[in-house]
Amino acid sequence: MSVRYSGSVGKLSSEVEPSMPDKHKSFSEWYSEILNRAELVDLRYGVKGAVVYMPNAMEIVDAIYSMFEEELKKTGHKKVLFPVFIPEENLKKESEHFRGFEGEVFWITKAGNRELDKKLVLRPTSETAIYPIYSLWVRNYRDLPLKLFQSVSVYRYETKATRPLFRGREFLWIEAHDVFKDEASARKQVTEDTEIFRRVVYDKLGIPFIHLKREEFDKFAGAVDTYAFETMLPDGKMLQIGTTHYLGTNFSKVFEIRYLDPDGRMRLAHQTCFGIGISRIVGALISIHGDDFGLVLPFSIAPIQVVIIPIPKREADIEGIKKMATDVEIELKNQGYRVKTDFSGKTPGEKFYRYDMLGVPVRIEIGPREVKRGELTVFRRDRRKREIIKRGDLINYLKFIEKDMLDFLRRKAEKEFKERLHEARTKNEFIELAKKGNFIIRAGFCGSEKCAENIKNLTGYEVRGTKAGKEEKLEDKRCIWCGRPAIKVVYIAKAY
Amino acid sequence: MSVRYSGSVGKLSSEVEPSMPDKHKSFSEWYSEILNRAELVDLRYGVKGAVVYMPNAMEIVDAIYSMFEEELKKTGHKKVLFPVFIPEENLKKESEHFRGFEGEVFWITKAGNRELDKKLVLRPTSETAIYPIYSLWVRNYRDLPLKLFQSVSVYRYETKATRPLFRGREFLWIEAHDVFKDEASARKQVTEDTEIFRRVVYDKLGIPFIHLKREEFDKFAGAVDTYAFETMLPDGKMLQIGTTHYLGTNFSKVFEIRYLDPDGRMRLAHQTCFGIGISRIVGALISIHGDDFGLVLPFSIAPIQVVIIPIPKREADIEGIKKMATDVEIELKNQGYRVKTDFSGKTPGEKFYRYDMLGVPVRIEIGPREVKRGELTVFRRDRRKREIIKRGDLINYLKFIEKDMLDFLRRKAEKEFKERLHEARTKNEFIELAKKGNFIIRAGFCGSEKCAENIKNLTGYEVRGTKAGKEEKLEDKRCIWCGRPAIKVVYIAKAY
Repeated sequence: MSVRYSGSVGKLSSEVEPSMPDKHKSFSEWYSEILNRAELVDLRYGVKGAVVYMPNAMEIVDAIYSMFEEELKKTGHKKVLFPVFIPEENLKKESEHFRGFEGEVFWITKAGNRELDKKLVLRPTSETAIYPIYSLWVRNYRDLPLKLFQSVSVYRYETKATRPLFRGREFLWIEAHDVFKDEASARKQVTEDTEIFRRVVYDKLGIPFIHLKREEFDKFAGAVDTYAFETMLPDGKMLQIGTTHYLGTNFSKVFEIRYLDPDGRMRLAHQTCFGIGISRIVGALISIHGDDFGLVLPFSIAPIQVVIIPIPKREADIEGIKKMATDVEIELKNQGYRVKTDFSGKTPGEKFYRYDMLGVPVRIEIGPREVKRGELTVFRRDRRKREIIKRGDLINYLKFIEKDMLDFLRRKAEKEFKERLHEARTKNEFIELAKKGNFIIRAGFCGSEKCAENIKNLTGYEVRGTKAGKEEKLEDKRCIWCGRPAIKVVYIAKAY
Repeated sequence: MSVRYSGSVGKLSSEVEPSMPDKHKSFSEWYSEILNRAELVDLRYGVKGAVVYMPNAMEIVDAIYSMFEEELKKTGHKKVLFPVFIPEENLKKESEHFRGFEGEVFWITKAGNRELDKKLVLRPTSETAIYPIYSLWVRNYRDLPLKLFQSVSVYRYETKATRPLFRGREFLWIEAHDVFKDEASARKQVTEDTEIFRRVVYDKLGIPFIHLKREEFDKFAGAVDTYAFETMLPDGKMLQIGTTHYLGTNFSKVFEIRYLDPDGRMRLAHQTCFGIGISRIVGALISIHGDDFGLVLPFSIAPIQVVIIPIPKREADIEGIKKMATDVEIELKNQGYRVKTDFSGKTPGEKFYRYDMLGVPVRIEIGPREVKRGELTVFRRDRRKREIIKRGDLINYLKFIEKDMLDFLRRKAEKEFKERLHEARTKNEFIELAKKGNFIIRAGFCGSEKCAENIKNLTGYEVRGTKAGKEEKLEDKRCIWCGRPAIKVVYIAKAY
């Protein structure tokens, strides 16, 4: 490997002042700023709710897609691809589903210079694209379970304000559509979906979430039960980043997905579907781990995991530094790390600023002192701290901090989450809290849609549901709004 | 690993009769049959030109995408994602481009219950989506070259007969859009694109193609020069599987993609674009390597590379066979092979038939004789031949046949290609040939669109262009149609 060092010599400029908006005080400004400075998303495309994913974002998008696809395949799912076009008549078949989506689908009415006889919609989600084909694929009990997913963009004509990655008219997701013999096995799938979600989002990305069962009036159009994965953004608002639904036989009835049981009878299949909001998870990752210096990426997902910055003081230093940098780079590459050595002409300070902004987890600085002593100065992006280690300890050090960084990020995020989680016992307590800012409020609830609507209209807060898979004790609670005896404990929060 | 053998014992049924249509005599029937039997594509979706990609196809699709993305990244391209929506006004900016595509775009005119003020088209290709943003990204010479690609579906309202994977209204592709300072560097990119294409399609997939420069009247709408990669299907018709275009400054003029040169002047950038037809390459792979027993997949792309089939004659054989099969499977997995052992209850014959159909490159049969002698019976899918090897030679054997199979498939395909390639010197010779079937005809040509049209109308053959990057000697040739002196040597063929 031959490299030419064209960098500055002898001047270690002070680090470039970040001057980013404060993430917690002005989250919205901070978020726009990081999307721009880290070159993640370009918002100037000119179609409302449609953004351009730049290379830095696409690396993250692809890495997260791979993580989920791996977990889905491990749990017996196979990948398919259904058309983006859904015939109007398919969409209309399940009436509740259609009512839920008719206000937000894009219609293709014309092709070339011809009006289409049969109008098409762009998939807003693919139940009505996939299930007519499932009715052909599912014949008897041996065809079940059928577990398939696709990684696609979906299209919804959002009438609310759109926000890059959080709410777009085009967004990236994965949708898994599974078919089972009976309710029990379908419900087990809901649990497996939760495990898949946790293994990626919590274990690998360090993003905390709560798993909620949506209220009756807030379910996915056509579902028996809807469960949502919700994380919290730095402004204290919740963001739904995934959902999983038990559909019962609602769709199998209208799309005629039946199987021949061993006892010779035809039975309706039970179904689940699972939506993973890739765009939103990318947005959450940026927002939750990022700081006032830019992105902070877990090792597993960082396009560059280690950046090596040569810092010569005099011309005479260059040879030795080059040799050491090359040596380190080769060792790390051989170990499978994604490494870059920046020999460019920018000052070290400019480079520090840039790689901080891009969220590179580890920076190795090599100057004459490091060369002389056989040491490395290592900077951890998560804690923004320098440490000096022996050259020979590098691999062990990286192995240690790969895990340690993820733990640190996850703990920090969980702490913020918990700090916003408050219990409210009375309407007054709730209203006082709501005045102070955005919180996740745990409270008793009577179950009525009317109360939820009033809460929404008067405070902007939304009833997000009960904790999934675990009934919480009521302890004589009353509905936080109407004061009648509560029948459940719900989580109430502002939401994207 | 614990496995339960539930298979038949002692009966090695004769192989299931394939009864596939003859690939060369009835290609169209054979192709429909293999798509169905190998569970690649389901044609019953109900929207013309839109198909369902089943898991077996998606594995191939993903593998081919990965191969191209790897090569593109190696050559300095980065991945992006632009919206599917293109505003009408963008599409109309480059008038020639618009004329080329207006007849085949899908129009979104309505969203929810509202008519849209500004109509949108679904991307048929993304020049007019991407280049307005390039005009913001390209500022000065340091921003160049800009080399980006996206892996997406595109949508064209084909009025010709659609055919699964070959001609759809929704198809999968990669499009790279590169920007350069000057013509010379842009033209170099055309050469690099050709190399990328060759490294995947010819080197890794074993698909032969010719690289043609399209005639003036047959160029991509808006291009200065269009080059096409064309392969030949078993029926002797050509299939365009990729194109690369030198766009000159045609688009940079209308989309204002300019850069500041070091000499202080603003200059128009030169552009190229490169389209890789993933759906078509998958279709070509199936068609060209497949045989009357089903798919034949190169090692590099096969979802299952080695299948192990236990063949016990008596109950007493089972233990020993299980042990050997497990041992082989573990060894192969440790070496990184994608292996499956089929302990299911089907007969060996049924299993042979099924894995042949799926194109699994290597089948290992283990019966009592193999166990006793420490040998393996190995079946190569490409040549459909059994060989007996020593147990200890397996890894070396696989390494050898991985390469040997690819060579075999490529040579076979090249031989078929060459057998169809004929020289014609006179109109009579051409017409006689055309009567006999489908050939690729090398002939002199006067360059006029009129002659090309007459050829098309009277014979169904099309002038596909001249050999790219290499002027072929004329040797007193005359135009194959009008008889005037030829100014070039062209390739004429029927085409998809």
